Amino acid sequence: MTSVYREPIFDVAQLGHTELLTPTLEKSAAFFTEVYGLYPVAETADSVYLRAWNDDVLTSLKLTASPEAGLGHVAWRASSPQGLERRVAALTERGIEGRWIDGDIGHGKAYSFMAPGGHSMEVYFETEKFRPAPDQKPYLPNQPQRYNPHGVAAAHIDHINLLVPDVAASRAFQEEALGFKLRERLVPTEDNEVGAWLSLMTKSHDLALTREPAQTDGRLHHLAYAVETRDDVLKAADIFMENGVFLEFGPAKHSRTQGFFLYVFEPGGNRIEVFAGGIHIFSPDFEPVTWTTEAGGRGTAWGLAVPDSFHSHATPVLRG
Amino acid sequence: MTSVYREPIFDVAQLGHTELLTPTLEKSAAFFTEVYGLYPVAETADSVYLRAWNDDVLTSLKLTASPEAGLGHVAWRASSPQGLERRVAALTERGIEGRWIDGDIGHGKAYSFMAPGGHSMEVYFETEKFRPAPDQKPYLPNQPQRYNPHGVAAAHIDHINLLVPDVAASRAFQEEALGFKLRERLVPTEDNEVGAWLSLMTKSHDLALTREPAQTDGRLHHLAYAVETRDDVLKAADIFMENGVFLEFGPAKHSRTQGFFLYVFEPGGNRIEVFAGGIHIFSPDFEPVTWTTEAGGRGTAWGLAVPDSFHSHATPVLRG
Amino acid sequence: MTSVYREPIFDVAQLGHTELLTPTLEKSAAFFTEVYGLYPVAETADSVYLRAWNDDVLTSLKLTASPEAGLGHVAWRASSPQGLERRVAALTERGIEGRWIDGDIGHGKAYSFMAPGGHSMEVYFETEKFRPAPDQKPYLPNQPQRYNPHGVAAAHIDHINLLVPDVAASRAFQEEALGFKLRERLVPTEDNEVGAWLSLMTKSHDLALTREPAQTDGRLHHLAYAVETRDDVLKAADIFMENGVFLEFGPAKHSRTQGFFLYVFEPGGNRIEVFAGGIHIFSPDFEPVTWTTEAGGRGTAWGLAVPDSFHSHATPVLRG
Amino acid sequence: MTSVYREPIFDVAQLGHTELLTPTLEKSAAFFTEVYGLYPVAETADSVYLRAWNDDVLTSLKLTASPEAGLGHVAWRASSPQGLERRVAALTERGIEGRWIDGDIGHGKAYSFMAPGGHSMEVYFETEKFRPAPDQKPYLPNQPQRYNPHGVAAAHIDHINLLVPDVAASRAFQEEALGFKLRERLVPTEDNEVGAWLSLMTKSHDLALTREPAQTDGRLHHLAYAVETRDDVLKAADIFMENGVFLEFGPAKHSRTQGFFLYVFEPGGNRIEVFAGGIHIFSPDFEPVTWTTEAGGRGTAWGLAVPDSFHSHATPVLRG
Repeated sequence: MTSVYREPIFDVAQLGHTELLTPTLEKSAAFFTEVYGLYPVAETADSVYLRAWNDDVLTSLKLTASPEAGLGHVAWRASSPQGLERRVAALTERGIEGRWIDGDIGHGKAYSFMAPGGHSMEVYFETEKFRPAPDQKPYLPNQPQRYNPHGVAAAHIDHINLLVPDVAASRAFQEEALGFKLRERLVPTEDNEVGAWLSLMTKSHDLALTREPAQTDGRLHHLAYAVETRDDVLKAADIFMENGVFLEFGPAKHSRTQGFFLYVFEPGGNRIEVFAGGIHIFSPDFEPVTWTTEAGGRGTAWGLAVPDSFHSHATPVLRG
Repeated sequence: MTSVYREPIFDVAQLGHTELLTPTLEKSAAFFTEVYGLYPVAETADSVYLRAWNDDVLTSLKLTASPEAGLGHVAWRASSPQGLERRVAALTERGIEGRWIDGDIGHGKAYSFMAPGGHSMEVYFETEKFRPAPDQKPYLPNQPQRYNPHGVAAAHIDHINLLVPDVAASRAFQEEALGFKLRERLVPTEDNEVGAWLSLMTKSHDLALTREPAQTDGRLHHLAYAVETRDDVLKAADIFMENGVFLEFGPAKHSRTQGFFLYVFEPGGNRIEVFAGGIHIFSPDFEPVTWTTEAGGRGTAWGLAVPDSFHSHATPVLRG
Repeated sequence: MTSVYREPIFDVAQLGHTELLTPTLEKSAAFFTEVYGLYPVAETADSVYLRAWNDDVLTSLKLTASPEAGLGHVAWRASSPQGLERRVAALTERGIEGRWIDGDIGHGKAYSFMAPGGHSMEVYFETEKFRPAPDQKPYLPNQPQRYNPHGVAAAHIDHINLLVPDVAASRAFQEEALGFKLRERLVPTEDNEVGAWLSLMTKSHDLALTREPAQTDGRLHHLAYAVETRDDVLKAADIFMENGVFLEFGPAKHSRTQGFFLYVFEPGGNRIEVFAGGIHIFSPDFEPVTWTTEAGGRGTAWGLAVPDSFHSHATPVLRG
Repeated sequence: MTSVYREPIFDVAQLGHTELLTPTLEKSAAFFTEVYGLYPVAETADSVYLRAWNDDVLTSLKLTASPEAGLGHVAWRASSPQGLERRVAALTERGIEGRWIDGDIGHGKAYSFMAPGGHSMEVYFETEKFRPAPDQKPYLPNQPQRYNPHGVAAAHIDHINLLVPDVAASRAFQEEALGFKLRERLVPTEDNEVGAWLSLMTKSHDLALTREPAQTDGRLHHLAYAVETRDDVLKAADIFMENGVFLEFGPAKHSRTQGFFLYVFEPGGNRIEVFAGGIHIFSPDFEPVTWTTEAGGRGTAWGLAVPDSFHSHATPVLRG
């Protein structure tokens, strides 16, 4: 008897948007618009909605005032209404009790649920595309917005890294329920999976899950936007430097994903990455890579040491 | 009654490999290995099999001796065995009479058929991955082969451009039968579609179909491999120049796809591109862009004129 | 008897500043500040003074309202007061009748003279350095101004190209009087020197002299500012495109100088270049290169044809 | 009475070549040719002579077998025979007792002397230019050698960093005797100059002098070749990684010079840099920058910590 080949699931297409909580909304919004290079598109009493110039959706980032920094929610966009229904069914099958919400600025109805690991997630399909005002119209119609770079000029939302108490369990859940493909994992000692890099389509990762070092859950490690080249990350470093932004880690090259990275903190305390490159995964049967040699560490390709803060700092920050 | 949303098809994942015909096999092989930077992996009486350092499959290019240059066949890799079956069924439904072949070096059984437009195509799933010899092992295990660049160092197979007599018909066929997504099309006058750019997953295009100017069919416009950055394309221009290779067109920026391109001819006469960038399409409901303003032309983003040869030369070359 | 080695002269150090005339002062100033990325530093009734972020002097460009576009003057900065005196003596020896002027915003007394070829030139030493306001202070004190790029972000003044009726004579004059070193020249047919590229220190050129095609003199071919990399020139092309600026020629690579170039017209009609790279000349006895193979043309390294306008357009524009 | 302006001296033009000592000549030569990307041009019983593709002289590096790693000598090329005579006179005036040597492969007679700090130096003018063999001829005649990159493809010799017991004294000597211009210095506490960056013409530095931490003299900190862009340094990091070369420090950005750097050790133990960028100094009266804020450290622009080895390791290595 032959076993049946397990088909990849393509019901979810992309990291749609993220909501970050910040105790310093005004300063955070200033950082993201003036230094990181995003554009404001809407505002409510407690939130500011932002977009990157090369996001084709209206908004990819919602900043919400809150006593503490951290993740509001992360939202995955389905490939179709049917795909959305199948994923909601798969979540329900796995005992997830979510609820349908009406939507928000930029998107329609969404299924909201708590993922294993304690992070609020949404999955949705209906989305408002960005329609440029006349002075934002690009010269080339295959681009959402005029390229008129300022600051880091972050180009589009790329991936998110969440801390979870049980990486293997959370990772398996995301594979089965939402259709994430496992690309790489870090298992320094047997059965001790401390990191997993997962993607929806052809990127090196849309979601990274790494081990929560503390007795808590639901924390954010970092949110990343992409720029086009490694040189753009170096230019970002120059711009952060000129603007008094502390560079926590990088620019350097990851070993996992091979992405070229730079991490900073936005004024609210959330860690934000500028990312370029990363392996491209075109093969539908890419064989997941298991890393074992770097005990406990995330490592970098060229040997740059990982700063302690990268292992300890996450949002919300824990109080002694 | 509400209409049903048409789900995207993800049964085919990538441009798997291409066979090019050449009247000068030895010289063509030397060009691809010494200047373009590919690696030979196998050889038969009439053919040489090549790979790029960042292809994860064993081989992506087969060069075959033939009286005339042109396309041997282009082969699309399915996402799964089930996806392959569904696509073969879809082909059959559309009256395509293909046949199963046993496979070739680098892949297993494949369904071979003649596409509208006169090009020999294959669709297949079983593939041999590249297993590096000890001296080809990369330092990072998430990469297929050591990066030890020589020549242009073409990184991976990217897309192919075929000339077809009826672009609209061929394009619709590829959408329906294989699941290509239409990204952009050039329709200079009503109902006169002269170009279509189609992709399988998130790239700007895996397949371009442009109007055959002559009373023939089955011709190749160009085959493209990707490099990482626009600067890599500029370096490729320097290397072609130093090696006496005529640069037909570029480096410059396409308007369609926004790719950064450089076209040369390999010694057999086939047009070969070095490509970087291109728009990234993450939205599952990307709205196809219709270009109307450039009558008959392919155009470039910055205004560089398209050389006449780009509109007239294709392989096989027509005899007066 | 042994001949005496002719020592290089280093009395003049750099292209200090240029004055461009424009019939559309306001629009020209807007182009240079908003698109080209320069900064205004002073203004008089008829002129606007500008600087690039990486110029260490107060100002490198003066725009002056005038009925016609063209060159106001080009000013060379001496290496020392003594070097200035020696160069004025050398000019006088050669029959040049100039005069001392008091200076202008940004520099002290200067010797003003008409160069063979009909261009107004100055040579001077006393210069006002740029002192950044608190909000312009760079993080690194070895840089004149904070790097906060906007538009093309032209970095520093680089070189100027003047049209002269007799290239060989003008070139010899500049070598002998000001100490320019001949780097390359274009002599398509014997004794017919149509281009000369000259530099003061280690750049590929600070001054290019090319043949005036018309029965006139004193015209400007182009003024160039530098950016750091070839990729920055590509980004400049994108930015010009988005801002509706016509790209006359480039981006591409020069054969002479090997610089990577892009030419546009500022609203007043003067041709402006964005330049990167260029050969570095560290050897004090660099052997000038004589090009003969490209009859009459300026040529490009990769074969891109030179547009007719590049041979015919200069400022002031001639009236039929 | 007015003081006399001190004219800059341009009698010395460039870092001509360097001799490195190595206990593992064969392995060192293999590293420099296969990984670093230099070319061998001559060989004697004990030495191998190398060149970079963009050096216009025959050779810029001599590797000599020796029991211990370190500097053989560093040689400065004069701008003219007259400049050479003036510099020898200036050395003699300062009590230096050197001697004329006949020359070596690649250059003619040279004045050899011991510089304060214990390093063997030469100053010379007569130099053999590189004449490419037919298969090394570049397409563009303004380039010394065909660009056919392999490995890191180091482009030309750039600068050298020597450890000296008394930085202020050594620095003043080099300014007065050879005409170096002081560009930047590090003086963390009053009168305690621990680093000086000096240049001959327009580069950020040709010579760096930093404080010898041990009770010794004559040691080499590092030798650097340049590549064109920061991205080329990143590619060098990838290539070193793939070839098993330990990356000591970088890629990152220096605060002094703003150069983009990467340090590795060649098999003999000498520290070798790949360098790009660096500030350009066109003003003849550039005001030297005094850094005081980074007590004892060399620092980096973006905050990357300097590894201990960078402060302690030099060649020859001291024995406990």
